Amino acid sequence: MDNMTFVLFGGTGDLAKRKIYPALYNLFLEGKMPKTFSIIGLGRGDMTEEQFHKGVENSIHTFSRHLSENDFKIKAFLNTIRYSQFDANTMDDYQRLLKLVKDRENELNIPENRLFYLSVSPVFFDTIALNIKQSGLGTTTGWKKLIIEKPFGHDLKSARELNSKLSNAFKEDEIYRIDHYLGKPMVRNIEALEFANPVLQALWNNKFIANVQITASETVGVEQRAGYYDQAGAIRDMFQNHMLQLLMMTAMHSPKQIGANEIREEKRKVLEALRPLNKDEVEQNVVRGQYGAGVVDNENVSGYKDEPGVAINSQTDTFIAARLWIDNPDWSGVPFYIRTGKKMREKSTRIVVEFKKSGDELYLNEDSNQLVIEINPNEAVTLHLNSKNPINGHMESMDVEYVSEQSDVPDGYELLIYDALLGDSTYFAHWNEVELAWNWVQPILDAFEENRIPLHEYEPGLNGPEAAHRLLEEDGFKWSLDKPTVKEKELVLQA
Amino acid sequence: MDNMTFVLFGGTGDLAKRKIYPALYNLFLEGKMPKTFSIIGLGRGDMTEEQFHKGVENSIHTFSRHLSENDFKIKAFLNTIRYSQFDANTMDDYQRLLKLVKDRENELNIPENRLFYLSVSPVFFDTIALNIKQSGLGTTTGWKKLIIEKPFGHDLKSARELNSKLSNAFKEDEIYRIDHYLGKPMVRNIEALEFANPVLQALWNNKFIANVQITASETVGVEQRAGYYDQAGAIRDMFQNHMLQLLMMTAMHSPKQIGANEIREEKRKVLEALRPLNKDEVEQNVVRGQYGAGVVDNENVSGYKDEPGVAINSQTDTFIAARLWIDNPDWSGVPFYIRTGKKMREKSTRIVVEFKKSGDELYLNEDSNQLVIEINPNEAVTLHLNSKNPINGHMESMDVEYVSEQSDVPDGYELLIYDALLGDSTYFAHWNEVELAWNWVQPILDAFEENRIPLHEYEPGLNGPEAAHRLLEEDGFKWSLDKPTVKEKELVLQA
Repeated sequence: MDNMTFVLFGGTGDLAKRKIYPALYNLFLEGKMPKTFSIIGLGRGDMTEEQFHKGVENSIHTFSRHLSENDFKIKAFLNTIRYSQFDANTMDDYQRLLKLVKDRENELNIPENRLFYLSVSPVFFDTIALNIKQSGLGTTTGWKKLIIEKPFGHDLKSARELNSKLSNAFKEDEIYRIDHYLGKPMVRNIEALEFANPVLQALWNNKFIANVQITASETVGVEQRAGYYDQAGAIRDMFQNHMLQLLMMTAMHSPKQIGANEIREEKRKVLEALRPLNKDEVEQNVVRGQYGAGVVDNENVSGYKDEPGVAINSQTDTFIAARLWIDNPDWSGVPFYIRTGKKMREKSTRIVVEFKKSGDELYLNEDSNQLVIEINPNEAVTLHLNSKNPINGHMESMDVEYVSEQSDVPDGYELLIYDALLGDSTYFAHWNEVELAWNWVQPILDAFEENRIPLHEYEPGLNGPEAAHRLLEEDGFKWSLDKPTVKEKELVLQA
Repeated sequence: MDNMTFVLFGGTGDLAKRKIYPALYNLFLEGKMPKTFSIIGLGRGDMTEEQFHKGVENSIHTFSRHLSENDFKIKAFLNTIRYSQFDANTMDDYQRLLKLVKDRENELNIPENRLFYLSVSPVFFDTIALNIKQSGLGTTTGWKKLIIEKPFGHDLKSARELNSKLSNAFKEDEIYRIDHYLGKPMVRNIEALEFANPVLQALWNNKFIANVQITASETVGVEQRAGYYDQAGAIRDMFQNHMLQLLMMTAMHSPKQIGANEIREEKRKVLEALRPLNKDEVEQNVVRGQYGAGVVDNENVSGYKDEPGVAINSQTDTFIAARLWIDNPDWSGVPFYIRTGKKMREKSTRIVVEFKKSGDELYLNEDSNQLVIEINPNEAVTLHLNSKNPINGHMESMDVEYVSEQSDVPDGYELLIYDALLGDSTYFAHWNEVELAWNWVQPILDAFEENRIPLHEYEPGLNGPEAAHRLLEEDGFKWSLDKPTVKEKELVLQA
């Protein structure tokens, strides 16, 4: 791993505190940082290096998954960090930064390898990228890399504009677009499950699979993010990026070899094969919802429109479900159902691969076989099989399962930053993926914008709007593994 | 379920005490006996009904998996039981028995449905069957059934003779041949696993399966059974019956419907497709072994030849391993390896289905996928998959598993007796199976008899003779899941 300088824009921000410093420190403890490196945190505030170090130390103590037993490790880590007051719009600040970077490079005798992490509002992305170029920060005798996080634009047009600007300063292979779902261990494992297991590979197609269900449900509401969220909605916040990434990981074909280009090429092909929706088809295939007020766990909770920071007449989607089709020989005829929502009954990110029933129906009561990949909060793989009750001979289900018991799993940011340091872009979103995803989503954005489809208010704490259930019922399926609601339980008890 | 009379020959014997009375009592407690029934125990001893009842009560207290909380249930059960002193060679005793049976039938006002359970030495099988016929016991206005246990003969010829004699008194569909492995819940489940699960059914053939390994290893030696065992050996005690039953259950095709005839028809087809071995081929495909003296768990243990009741120059096999081929389109090219032995490292009955590796070798360190069906002492189904270590990206194994946690599983005898009472012969060995099994085994018996193949002495407490490992190595495989021996562990530690 090359010695380098890690320049963190937004170095006093929330993400830096909660994720980036703890991740860097954990990598440092595990010997996964370069032999010699320099970290430069940038922020608007005027503070001393000591004050800044104190803040980083606090963040590590609060959020790091492990701490060294003695102080000297954290001292050594802090010792690599410098702070610079910085305003993204002031060219002088870039010059000061360049001098600081160069001074540290000389001091440490490390090459001009520079990683720029933009942990800032997306409105600054293009400015910063441009100024990195113009200031000479990006003119290095070594490598340069740019890490940015979503949102990559607000729609297809703005995403293209943003990318075009970034491209002036960084080449595609220098840009690492974080989709933190690709940092989750079980998401990275989908590819291995599928391709390193002949038994699953054999089953991974429309001959055996009836449908695929991808769910990311949250119990929380909009929380402190209303300002951003009310402009984005579930479709931009989750669907266009994380959910379509899960779709790509699930449906991709075996790459020719294990490499970032090959794997991302296969992911791209999935999006290219995604059957386009035109605006008129949106209503039949997409359900949007917004949580209303209600009672959850015996407490009154506000509806979305009443949340602080949300427009009182907001039409923003806090729930979206969609039916997608991948028009290629392997997936033709297999509906992919995707849903994500806030204020749902259960926090769960999971992929359910539901297999077709056998044709011969020897066993009348058999359930469909399902492979369930649980991503969050549990990491688990479960194969639902049918078995025979030894006592009465009836069919019953047999859950063959693996549940991760690793307690000390690295956070996604650790994995992703480590990958970026190594130059492995496998689990970063390529521009092709981002663009194709926006392209597919755009007609839905338009339909939402024009209010062409209903906005279903749904009760908080349940499994989303009824329309999302009907979407599957139309095809003879149902969302799998939804926990029964209190009402449903009562109905069962009454029956 | 028809009211009936249950006549137990060998009613004071060991199997009756350990298995049959507890099974009948458990069925009684669970309401799975007929509404009205009569049990008649036969034994050579002269004892009062009260003494006999005392013995049955003791056996229930000692061996039943559950006991009623109050006394009246066991009293009610004992109340159904009569004892009759009986000598199998004395015709008068059959007449007395007939009178007792009829008296009880009249007393209880139940039809002449009679089940004869021959829990006696096989030397009496033909005599008793003949005398049941000649005495008129078998001439009923209702049904009659015969339950017998292995051994069904000593070789092909003697098995045919025995069957011919039994056939004079009972029709094939009246004969219930117990193979108690078919009473084990997980063995009964193989069929459901295979046919009620499209994902497994799809994989269940030579396109995906590399080999199948069926192991039944015991840690015990010959114990108290030397008199019988030294004449039988592992091949007659385990291989010809239990092991070939497991093979049939694993390799059978989907029956046209779920019925005793259809399922046994499919099992028969497996044996018919078993590639015959001639005497010259035995050495290449069969390994026999006999345990020698050694040290197990720091204690000296005798070799087989030194066990009480064993001939000092005994050539009897206490271990057998064999490679078998099923010549049909689904299994062509898939070796089935079977082994069973005494004084092995581990008590384990299991079936390992090892799948082929994928051709493309994307992941260099992948292990083969395996489906492991553990039958005894654990009941479990495990799918060995490959997964990716989230930290270092290396391949590692992911065991997706189901382990039965049912603590109150009925004993195989309960299931089997219940089936026989219902007239369901699915899990009893049809004569076709028995005959075909003897027919396939006969050349091995001959080769053993003529000492045409070596008798490998093996160290007790390990995984059997080296030759049994070479058998798989020749094909590029190895016995899966063998626990490493102490020596092997030491070698690993040294390395």
